[in-house]
Amino acid sequence: MAALRQLCHDLPPPDMTADAAIASHDSQLTKPPGSLGQLEELARWAGQWQHTDRPRAERVDIIVFAGNHGVTTQGVTPWPVDVTRQMVENFRNGGAAINQIARISAARLHVVDVEALRPTADMTRAPAMDEPTFLRALATGMQAVRTDTDLLCLGEMGIGNSTAAAAVCAALFGGGGAKWAGRGTGLDDAGVRHKAAVIDRALARHGSHLSDPLAILRHLGGHELAAIMGAVIAARYRNIPVLLDGFICTAAAAPLALLHPHGLAHTRLSHCSAEGGHAHLAAALGLSPLLDLGLRLGEGSGAGLAIPLVRSAIACLCGMATFAQARVSEKE
Amino acid sequence: MAALRQLCHDLPPPDMTADAAIASHDSQLTKPPGSLGQLEELARWAGQWQHTDRPRAERVDIIVFAGNHGVTTQGVTPWPVDVTRQMVENFRNGGAAINQIARISAARLHVVDVEALRPTADMTRAPAMDEPTFLRALATGMQAVRTDTDLLCLGEMGIGNSTAAAAVCAALFGGGGAKWAGRGTGLDDAGVRHKAAVIDRALARHGSHLSDPLAILRHLGGHELAAIMGAVIAARYRNIPVLLDGFICTAAAAPLALLHPHGLAHTRLSHCSAEGGHAHLAAALGLSPLLDLGLRLGEGSGAGLAIPLVRSAIACLCGMATFAQARVSEKE
Repeated sequence: MAALRQLCHDLPPPDMTADAAIASHDSQLTKPPGSLGQLEELARWAGQWQHTDRPRAERVDIIVFAGNHGVTTQGVTPWPVDVTRQMVENFRNGGAAINQIARISAARLHVVDVEALRPTADMTRAPAMDEPTFLRALATGMQAVRTDTDLLCLGEMGIGNSTAAAAVCAALFGGGGAKWAGRGTGLDDAGVRHKAAVIDRALARHGSHLSDPLAILRHLGGHELAAIMGAVIAARYRNIPVLLDGFICTAAAAPLALLHPHGLAHTRLSHCSAEGGHAHLAAALGLSPLLDLGLRLGEGSGAGLAIPLVRSAIACLCGMATFAQARVSEKE
Repeated sequence: MAALRQLCHDLPPPDMTADAAIASHDSQLTKPPGSLGQLEELARWAGQWQHTDRPRAERVDIIVFAGNHGVTTQGVTPWPVDVTRQMVENFRNGGAAINQIARISAARLHVVDVEALRPTADMTRAPAMDEPTFLRALATGMQAVRTDTDLLCLGEMGIGNSTAAAAVCAALFGGGGAKWAGRGTGLDDAGVRHKAAVIDRALARHGSHLSDPLAILRHLGGHELAAIMGAVIAARYRNIPVLLDGFICTAAAAPLALLHPHGLAHTRLSHCSAEGGHAHLAAALGLSPLLDLGLRLGEGSGAGLAIPLVRSAIACLCGMATFAQARVSEKE
């Protein structure tokens, strides 16, 4: 854990020389200054973290980490636990939403079943993971990040993982189960109340161990959440900007924001999920979403949908003519 | 004008049989019901207007209509009028933002200089267009719509056209120049006040002729705005759903919403522009934008960016496995 803590402490900074070069070039392109709005910021963000004034988004990876959760024995979801494995098969056979989105977004899709889909311990009775398992899941995420990636999208699949994510958020930011428990994949009001109570029991069970962001992720998270955290850290060290997906993905990355003041600066929130906790979490982290389409699927679906926005932002920066090149008159 | 009015009155309705078939198929796909949010609505919308339960978005056209405006002599913009022609050249040479966005979105880009870029009359002194010119510009827009198009994106280029669009909105919805005049491509506060006063002068000049949506577009609009209106009408008759772009594009289509109770039902607002009037206009029309990225460029840029969303929505509908096909268990 000490080595991991050091890694989180020493995260590399952005390339502000590249950033300045991009801003200067952008100001000469044939458009009114600022008229591409967030697209201009996206291109600068990509350049800052790729460490170049001509960023690229040709090789884009979507990694979906899958894991199972012991807390499902507490009745926090109406879906059978088997669905995690069945959906992993569906991903591999091309039948899920993320397969279609990856194809349209021209991204490579990778599915990683973390810890071979063995469930974590039930967090209401024991830490979800012991230290070796937690570190192994985290390393799985780190190793899944390829070096030849221009842009990384992260997603997850795991029956019960919105309960784990909500517990992590409650421990990191306060507010208890009631603030963070949502409908997940389809709970009714009574189900949400039960889920909140289960989270509160887990928080009470581990109270004295929840003072540290890494300990919170180990006690309350899950294998796929730890893997996402690992992938976010690895991407930072490999100069790869990251698109985060929905509530669970963002919750998995959130500990890094508390371990380093700019821990998530190389990530962008692709969308705001319909899962209630996601807007709270985005606000707590100071992240503003690119899309707001009422999605609540996970699988990296929102991140995948945001790829063309990043690609378009970079294409405008790198492909547009300047006023001089196009012989377009400037503002008087 | 009578034939045009009849055309607007007789707009064909959506295919609700296709819609029901899509809803039924969607409910069997391997995802929690409703979890793809607005993507599910987008796929149904495309099917309703393409009149099929398996919509397509393979052949996508972006048409940018360009025109010039006599009202520029009133000092409503800091950009030289020549920029319209120069930007048309830039579009043809591949150097503008929309060229990059069209490439990333795999769309065909067409540029139409309406009325050969001759300016309209100055609307503070005369109707922007006489009837023959208005109908010719409208027909140019109709003829620009190809029959082999799955999805049509509309955009515009025209120095001075945010003044024309604001005047059209003020006449259609009330509120005067102050409500609808915005910064356009970069006015300061004094510039916006002057622009509002110019609009109010035009409204006063044509007061008695502004009781009818088509007359409003002829007196206060512009050649490229009339062409957009024509393209929106033609698309409806050819079963082609339409993505509208920003303030000027939406203002050009707005008269149709007042000529027919569901006149814009086959269109979706691709984004909400940073140009202040666009949010007012979207509210007045009851349209909710897909994207909100602070764009204020025009050229069809927002519509182009929304193409992958429609394509992903359709890909999910048509490409995902059902629970039965994928042998995924359903909710208990």
